[in-house]
Amino acid sequence: MRAVVLAAGEGSRMNGARSGEHKALRKILGISIIERGILAMRDAGVHHFTVVVGYAGDKVRDALGNGSSLGVSIEYVENKDWRRGNGTSVYAARNTVGNDEFIVAMADHWYEPEIAKLLTANSSGGAISKLCVDLDIDSPLRSDDATRVRVIADGSIVQVGKNLSDFSAVDCGLFLFNRDIFGALQKGFASEEYELGAAANRLASTGRLEMVDVEGLLWEDIDTEDELKAASRKLRRSLPGSDDGLISQYLNRRLSVPISMIAIRARLTPNFVSLLALLLAVFSGFSFAFGNIIAGAIAAQMASIVDGSDGEVARARFMSSKRGGLVDSVLDRVADGFILGGAGYHVLTNSPESWELAIVLMALAIAPMSMILKDRFQLATGRKWQSELDDGASRVLLATRDGRLFVLFLGGLLNLLAPALAFVAITGMLLLVWRLVLAWVQMTPIPGPSETPGAVPSLSQSGAEAGGD
Amino acid sequence: MRAVVLAAGEGSRMNGARSGEHKALRKILGISIIERGILAMRDAGVHHFTVVVGYAGDKVRDALGNGSSLGVSIEYVENKDWRRGNGTSVYAARNTVGNDEFIVAMADHWYEPEIAKLLTANSSGGAISKLCVDLDIDSPLRSDDATRVRVIADGSIVQVGKNLSDFSAVDCGLFLFNRDIFGALQKGFASEEYELGAAANRLASTGRLEMVDVEGLLWEDIDTEDELKAASRKLRRSLPGSDDGLISQYLNRRLSVPISMIAIRARLTPNFVSLLALLLAVFSGFSFAFGNIIAGAIAAQMASIVDGSDGEVARARFMSSKRGGLVDSVLDRVADGFILGGAGYHVLTNSPESWELAIVLMALAIAPMSMILKDRFQLATGRKWQSELDDGASRVLLATRDGRLFVLFLGGLLNLLAPALAFVAITGMLLLVWRLVLAWVQMTPIPGPSETPGAVPSLSQSGAEAGGD
Repeated sequence: MRAVVLAAGEGSRMNGARSGEHKALRKILGISIIERGILAMRDAGVHHFTVVVGYAGDKVRDALGNGSSLGVSIEYVENKDWRRGNGTSVYAARNTVGNDEFIVAMADHWYEPEIAKLLTANSSGGAISKLCVDLDIDSPLRSDDATRVRVIADGSIVQVGKNLSDFSAVDCGLFLFNRDIFGALQKGFASEEYELGAAANRLASTGRLEMVDVEGLLWEDIDTEDELKAASRKLRRSLPGSDDGLISQYLNRRLSVPISMIAIRARLTPNFVSLLALLLAVFSGFSFAFGNIIAGAIAAQMASIVDGSDGEVARARFMSSKRGGLVDSVLDRVADGFILGGAGYHVLTNSPESWELAIVLMALAIAPMSMILKDRFQLATGRKWQSELDDGASRVLLATRDGRLFVLFLGGLLNLLAPALAFVAITGMLLLVWRLVLAWVQMTPIPGPSETPGAVPSLSQSGAEAGGD
Repeated sequence: MRAVVLAAGEGSRMNGARSGEHKALRKILGISIIERGILAMRDAGVHHFTVVVGYAGDKVRDALGNGSSLGVSIEYVENKDWRRGNGTSVYAARNTVGNDEFIVAMADHWYEPEIAKLLTANSSGGAISKLCVDLDIDSPLRSDDATRVRVIADGSIVQVGKNLSDFSAVDCGLFLFNRDIFGALQKGFASEEYELGAAANRLASTGRLEMVDVEGLLWEDIDTEDELKAASRKLRRSLPGSDDGLISQYLNRRLSVPISMIAIRARLTPNFVSLLALLLAVFSGFSFAFGNIIAGAIAAQMASIVDGSDGEVARARFMSSKRGGLVDSVLDRVADGFILGGAGYHVLTNSPESWELAIVLMALAIAPMSMILKDRFQLATGRKWQSELDDGASRVLLATRDGRLFVLFLGGLLNLLAPALAFVAITGMLLLVWRLVLAWVQMTPIPGPSETPGAVPSLSQSGAEAGGD
């Protein structure tokens, strides 16, 4: 799929516009608005781009080059008519898009990468055009000059325009078009309508435009300095992952996001941040083992917090990778081993009681279980286990990694490491049983055509293996 | 998809045939040949069956009923002409198969369930007919009266017949047909050719038949008592999973298969066998902890062996289920925790050295790592980590579960539990590093259209999460 990025306009309400700067080249956390859009589309599977330039076109070309530094290919089309309206820019790209459907994106919109994924996932294969819309029309910043959209119940868009009084959504600036749009544009040009919105309205009025609801995902149409700041805040808000335990959600994320900001400004890679978290854990483990409990406790909690940053840095810098994620998740277990092992070593050095020995060994054995069950659940069902959704009341056990390390942090500060490890062992077991039961119930096989439901084992043998690991 | 099962013939070379028994109802490990075929196809996604009966048809109907006990629906067609040839049986089913492609299977063939999956996976959507063939034509039992097949390099079948002198494969008795087969049968009937092979030969001679190579998977055309025994042996051979460590492959499987045979005859469920393995592990852990090292060692190794049986029982009894596999894999970790924890408890009870404390904690922390990495690799890449293929030389470390428990078994017998745990800890770490490096290399991103390969992070963010587990 190809995307046409409309970067010809002037953006006269931004600082610096008058001095020949291009607003889409303004940076948010080190990456320009237009680059963020291109990278988001790349991560949604789009690798070929047409960038339509006009005002300050040379600056755009200089900044993006042929796209290779972004991992995409870019060709440029110059639109000398850009002052007439952005419809002329789409039309100028008509010879670059072939006969397949293509994306049209505004260069000056910031949006969460998931919005681009949502759009491509909602492709009709070119049968009908699509427009990303936000059904939250009360947001103060965007209400004044947003393009308004009227949607009916089945998701069809029936009207598009700046001045609609009866509207149910606003346009997020991301379209999927087939070649119908060029006909609609030509008709508009004939009656001196040069805005893309007018052409989209033509498609809408003939039943050829459907919405893609962005469902609360964040985006911003950046026309002013205030909106640039709003986009930056929204990007920050969008960084934390969604699969958090309670401690992570309410404590660690407040600290990991500022740490991520520092790491992003220092241009640290996510892998470097992962390594940093591991080093903190190693330091914590040895501190515990050598009797420096306070240092061990603080380092354990810091490791837990910094562990949230690598994913945030990866998302902000478009440096997420599967193998980075894999190494991170495995190093987290190694880090856990150091911290729990160090704490256990401390508890067991001075002629421990039998119960202390038992709980240390239990805590170490049980700690990885909750993650193993989640992984196995996803492998078996294809669905990710989501703590907030699936764990329900068991989240108060604090038995996931964030809670476990927080309990050790408190236990270390209060010189109560043995009870802290007992807590880890017991809540870990409770969570394991809880998750096993939940997973078992959720995985009840769907009966086949048989009249005796329940007698039908499911298809796959995956997982029912043994002998190696 | 529907399957037509040809069960009309007499099978006159089997014992009991003359007394009105039906050979496809003969049992292998408690399940009849025809049921095994139907269950294999069910697990390949086929839920509707037409069983064509003739000789001893009532016995077949009584045995299979409406299929609900097998989790499928069965309708019956009677073919009074069955003595003429099995082509008449396929023809008799013509009003039950609709216009979609359908499977034709011989009721008296046993085959590994993977063959049925291979056939459905190779569907052309009805464009061309397919025939499962075995390119190993030298197997002694099948050479005499097998239907021979001549295949050319692109996989097209050019000739089918009992008496071909120039042939490259033999027919396994599983077809995917579109309605072309009925025309081919009618043409044959006109010249008094009533065998399905003759009709298949007509399709082949006009370029409408392709092979599906069964690639070393096991099957047997059961015409005699000897072939029934051969099928039983092959089923036994097919039970062990393919993903084994060295100890499992060369030692445990020799013992788990006989145990599985007993469990199958006793009609034990796979989940019951999983539970048995867990109980052995719990017994082992407590034996170690209470100082009965020999009992602990033997129970640990028995747990390891029985752990191989649950999957075998599940496969033999068509009782594999995703949630059974999930619970089994999690219980394996719990079992590991008991055994390693018990052994560690023993080592640490009598004023241990610092190094003993360190290695016990390390062994417990590192033990689950190799499996976690495998799971994460599969989640990230969609490909299962295969010990034999991927681990290479590192298999001699004996650092997977089978090896680990075997080392503890030996360590217990020789009263060297501390060195055994040291071995587990050190080889576990080596394997983890080895697998991390291998996974990292294997997951090198494939460059996009960019001219600077290596600069392109891959698409997914999965895994680069943190904060919960």
